Amino acid sequence: MTDFHRHPDSYHHWQLSIEGDVAHLRMNVDPEYAFQPGYELKLNSYDLGVDMELADAIQRLRFEHPAVKVVVVGSAQERAFCAGANIWMLAESTHPFKVNFCKYTNETRLSLEDASQHSGLKSICAINAACAGGGYELALACDEIHLVNDNNSAVSLPEVPLLGVLPGTGGLTRLVDKRKVRRDRADVFCTMAEGLRGKRALAWGLVDAIWPKSQFTDKVQARAKELAASLPEKAKRGITLEPVHGERTDTGYRYQHVQVEIDAAGRTATITVHGPKGAQPKTGADYERAGSSAWALRCFRELDDALLQLRFDHEQVGLLVLKTRGDRAALLQVEQDLFANRSHWLCNEILLQMARTLRRWDLMSRSMYALVDAEACCAGAFFELTIGCDRVYALDDDRVQFAIGPLSNGALPMSHGLTRLHNRFLADPGHGQKLAAEQPTLAAAEADEQGLCTYLLDPVDWEDDVRIALEERVSLSPDALTGMEASLRFGGAENCDSKIFGRLSAWQNWIFTRPNATGDEGALTRYGAPESAKFDWRRT
Amino acid sequence: MTDFHRHPDSYHHWQLSIEGDVAHLRMNVDPEYAFQPGYELKLNSYDLGVDMELADAIQRLRFEHPAVKVVVVGSAQERAFCAGANIWMLAESTHPFKVNFCKYTNETRLSLEDASQHSGLKSICAINAACAGGGYELALACDEIHLVNDNNSAVSLPEVPLLGVLPGTGGLTRLVDKRKVRRDRADVFCTMAEGLRGKRALAWGLVDAIWPKSQFTDKVQARAKELAASLPEKAKRGITLEPVHGERTDTGYRYQHVQVEIDAAGRTATITVHGPKGAQPKTGADYERAGSSAWALRCFRELDDALLQLRFDHEQVGLLVLKTRGDRAALLQVEQDLFANRSHWLCNEILLQMARTLRRWDLMSRSMYALVDAEACCAGAFFELTIGCDRVYALDDDRVQFAIGPLSNGALPMSHGLTRLHNRFLADPGHGQKLAAEQPTLAAAEADEQGLCTYLLDPVDWEDDVRIALEERVSLSPDALTGMEASLRFGGAENCDSKIFGRLSAWQNWIFTRPNATGDEGALTRYGAPESAKFDWRRT
Repeated sequence: MTDFHRHPDSYHHWQLSIEGDVAHLRMNVDPEYAFQPGYELKLNSYDLGVDMELADAIQRLRFEHPAVKVVVVGSAQERAFCAGANIWMLAESTHPFKVNFCKYTNETRLSLEDASQHSGLKSICAINAACAGGGYELALACDEIHLVNDNNSAVSLPEVPLLGVLPGTGGLTRLVDKRKVRRDRADVFCTMAEGLRGKRALAWGLVDAIWPKSQFTDKVQARAKELAASLPEKAKRGITLEPVHGERTDTGYRYQHVQVEIDAAGRTATITVHGPKGAQPKTGADYERAGSSAWALRCFRELDDALLQLRFDHEQVGLLVLKTRGDRAALLQVEQDLFANRSHWLCNEILLQMARTLRRWDLMSRSMYALVDAEACCAGAFFELTIGCDRVYALDDDRVQFAIGPLSNGALPMSHGLTRLHNRFLADPGHGQKLAAEQPTLAAAEADEQGLCTYLLDPVDWEDDVRIALEERVSLSPDALTGMEASLRFGGAENCDSKIFGRLSAWQNWIFTRPNATGDEGALTRYGAPESAKFDWRRT
Repeated sequence: MTDFHRHPDSYHHWQLSIEGDVAHLRMNVDPEYAFQPGYELKLNSYDLGVDMELADAIQRLRFEHPAVKVVVVGSAQERAFCAGANIWMLAESTHPFKVNFCKYTNETRLSLEDASQHSGLKSICAINAACAGGGYELALACDEIHLVNDNNSAVSLPEVPLLGVLPGTGGLTRLVDKRKVRRDRADVFCTMAEGLRGKRALAWGLVDAIWPKSQFTDKVQARAKELAASLPEKAKRGITLEPVHGERTDTGYRYQHVQVEIDAAGRTATITVHGPKGAQPKTGADYERAGSSAWALRCFRELDDALLQLRFDHEQVGLLVLKTRGDRAALLQVEQDLFANRSHWLCNEILLQMARTLRRWDLMSRSMYALVDAEACCAGAFFELTIGCDRVYALDDDRVQFAIGPLSNGALPMSHGLTRLHNRFLADPGHGQKLAAEQPTLAAAEADEQGLCTYLLDPVDWEDDVRIALEERVSLSPDALTGMEASLRFGGAENCDSKIFGRLSAWQNWIFTRPNATGDEGALTRYGAPESAKFDWRRT
């Protein structure tokens, strides 16, 4: 079982220090402590292990240090801010690992932007030295980029000229869509291995400020203080995020509220999520007392962890089967309390964590079927998980109910900004809005009439029909399904986030499979070797 | 030289008949008349040659038959409406050909939608029998889909289950984004080889009307008449579209207004476009008299043809170099007259043709550099070609001027709906709007200041700098450049069209290269063979 948990006390690659309302997160990658053997993490280059610590640091700033309003992302190494994703790691990795690695690092950067947009935690990237590739992509995810103005400190995206691949962690999209860099300048910048320094980087909008080396630390610190002073205070004390380790069972994982049963032969994984049991916190103060053991937080952190396990350690599982369990009323009560107290910093953070987990759910490159059976707890956020699936199989039974909760009306948006109800009913937005506003509880037949079920099955047919449905799905081409699901799941609007996953990642996936990048003579394979790459020059 | 010209008199695969304001375009593919040897076009399946005729028919309806307000797209075969793109053709094709084929068929379908939106030419798809894959994608591009309600006539997208590839001619995108089919239903539909018939197809929004076989022809005809009656009359008589054949030269092609010089060793093609010479039509009536020889129409039809030649016949050319020639004032005068008369059907059609050619330009998967030298005619639509390039190299010389014309303010939109000026200045939309509204003529230095040049070069450096720039560009990975350019060229908004090219095509490109589709044991390769496909089950 891959351990995605990290803790600042045992970071190998980052230093987190907090002074009042400003935190400093300094990259200091230990070259010897790679996630997998076979490469060295020189010049603050990163791999999955480095990014797990970054993801952890952002989470802890949000939950454990709500007094922090600005995080300065910097480097503890003088020679390098960050050299980007480690090239030898990429060159050695399988295609599925590369794709999952990029998706994880993309999600981590989005969590930084999410914190800025919704948690009042702004970020400043302090680039003290060379900043290349994924290093600059991390900078692009920050609110402000400050650069030392000297002869050595350049920002660059050298992937195209040096490696024959894309800056795939959002770089191209954020360049033109977030920072709105002029397209021809972006073209020049993305094809120059050496990147741009100082005034030119500033003039082209690649950075927001440049400072002489001697003043750099002071100027960045002053800006961080100034920015922090402009932001409202959230809270003085946070909660402690305890780990949510799952236990390996014979056939999967068991967490407190989440179970995963893997049928290796059938290439399916059944994910069972359990609703709250017993008394739950009601107010923000209750949640502060409960800490990370509160169901709403723990359950979705567990699910998050389970999804990562499935992505990285179970590549052959083609279909996720969702089962929901628990008391619908208790679950809805939790959501009502969280929603009523959403101006409380911790309730807000918990809702945002639920939303991020649901977005990770939407982005699973596996087929997903929800089974709404007699024991199902298809309510609130579990209802969102349900309609986040490619299909919903519901049992035509009196005990089955679909209960839409207060969070379906905008608190848990998809990557492209729509609610799942809006996304489901693009042909009739009023219908989605009505369901979201009225929050009805619907019997199975009614839910089917309202467009919430893909199939409403007779109890007599249930077992056979479901079994056949699962078997049929996993018989199809895994690649075609990935492309199909990526196209069908996200209708309507687009934004920077969805363009990263839907467009940039698709191109990168293509490029990663091409001999020009990963063949024996490809640019990624040959990077650092004496012979240069050989290309098939045909353009497609 | 590939001949992209077709004429209804010599169609092999379509029958075009016109009765008053309704045209019938019936597919009747000659199985023996494939575009390339090695496969038979059974069951109205299509290849590039079939689609060239379709593209031609749409063009002729627009220009030659403006009295037609509704085109009914049907089949002359009883057993099949259309079986989609020919599978054996696809399985045999190289990757670059497959990608270019899909792009061409996508553009053809978009031209049908463009005619509906801007030319008052609506389309009804009359599905009289089985309609699969690309057949249904053609239907999706029509305004209305009518289906025979019987046991044989189904619509289907069987690519995923049967071939392990995507319906890549816009199918997935149009399903959820144009027809707004519920995502779970779209998921079911796209994984069932047999598709859906009659009432279910109607209930799911896959078709707009179903009719008993006995009434089908009458009902469709009645609807076509009714729809035509609701539309305003454009004109009684059209013009004749004469072919715009280019002449093969030692090093490229020569048309009347367009020249292409190919440097095979340098992997570049220099495209020189020439502005109008001599007297040009001013009014709509003038244009009717001039017919297809008018510069504005002929020049862009020639450019269109040249771009197709480059796509299909010169895969190794990695960089297009644009040179513009001619008299700026004369070119702007033509545009002012066209724009002033845009309510005239023919002026409107000519403007739409220019816009489509410019979109084909934007979508060239080649790097594109514009050279604005002392002889350049960087004005109007040629200015649009210029800023449609990845980079603009301008000579710092008194003779160089950038003249923005009346068409830059919305008449020539990009695929995603933005003007090129808007797309260029996303960071400062007011600046783009101001330039578009004021239509200034700017000296080189001023144009550079206003953000229109990537490089402003001293005459002393010009030749060396340009030569080095071209050499550098063509040394980079062709695949990485394709992905990079697709990401940087289109910032901001998205629509159905841009999602097809930017998202759907990227996924399809990836899937086409995967062994699960095109490997020896892949689904596309093995289609129709006794052994079924073998998949690498890892999901990515």
